[in-house]
Amino acid sequence: MPDKQRMQTTVDDYIAHMSAGDKEAWLDLFADGATVEDPVGTPPHVGREAIAAFWDLVRSLSDSLTVDRTGPIRCAGAEAAFPMQAHTDLGGTSMVVDIIDVFTFDDDHKIVGMRAFWDQSDMRVE
Amino acid sequence: MPDKQRMQTTVDDYIAHMSAGDKEAWLDLFADGATVEDPVGTPPHVGREAIAAFWDLVRSLSDSLTVDRTGPIRCAGAEAAFPMQAHTDLGGTSMVVDIIDVFTFDDDHKIVGMRAFWDQSDMRVE
Repeated sequence: MPDKQRMQTTVDDYIAHMSAGDKEAWLDLFADGATVEDPVGTPPHVGREAIAAFWDLVRSLSDSLTVDRTGPIRCAGAEAAFPMQAHTDLGGTSMVVDIIDVFTFDDDHKIVGMRAFWDQSDMRVE
Repeated sequence: MPDKQRMQTTVDDYIAHMSAGDKEAWLDLFADGATVEDPVGTPPHVGREAIAAFWDLVRSLSDSLTVDRTGPIRCAGAEAAFPMQAHTDLGGTSMVVDIIDVFTFDDDHKIVGMRAFWDQSDMRVE
């Protein structure tokens, strides 16, 4: 069973690497063969190459992207859930959307599954 | 695919019925054969009878129980995730814990799966 403190550290590293635009450090948080379902209900991206391509796609759609955690990390079993906001710059307009991410970890504290709960229609001008 | 507005209404009904102690109205939000995994990582309670027994167990452990939503509901696909706090009275001491609930809905907007992310060690005195 993964350690709670280390799961929480990985969550905050994830947020920091994403906001810093540090793609390689962000990718290194995932296990081989990890899945990313973002948003929930869409086909998952499976494995490092597909997850890297997803990063590139997201970055191509906005001039900037930062995320911040908006509440405590809830750990349970081998999973962690937390609320966050993503801030993007779309053609000079600052937009924000509320997200809840759920991560599943392996025993090495790598992310084996990431699911992001959000809806594009909830994006709003900041 | 369930409707977003109706999923959000069910989330708020769930919270209202739980805080009001209205067991039957709360149970009626679930589909037949629904699963409740609370907290995540423990064996799920399956079906109305088991979920009703879980309600009774939780109520037997505290003198009072109320819950409130602490952020927006994030809907994605047939699921909804939201942050909340549970407030309990344990032997005269008011305790609070942060939770994230994730619901999965059927096309009739009944809850077919509920997963609650929280950790008993995060309970604190209010």
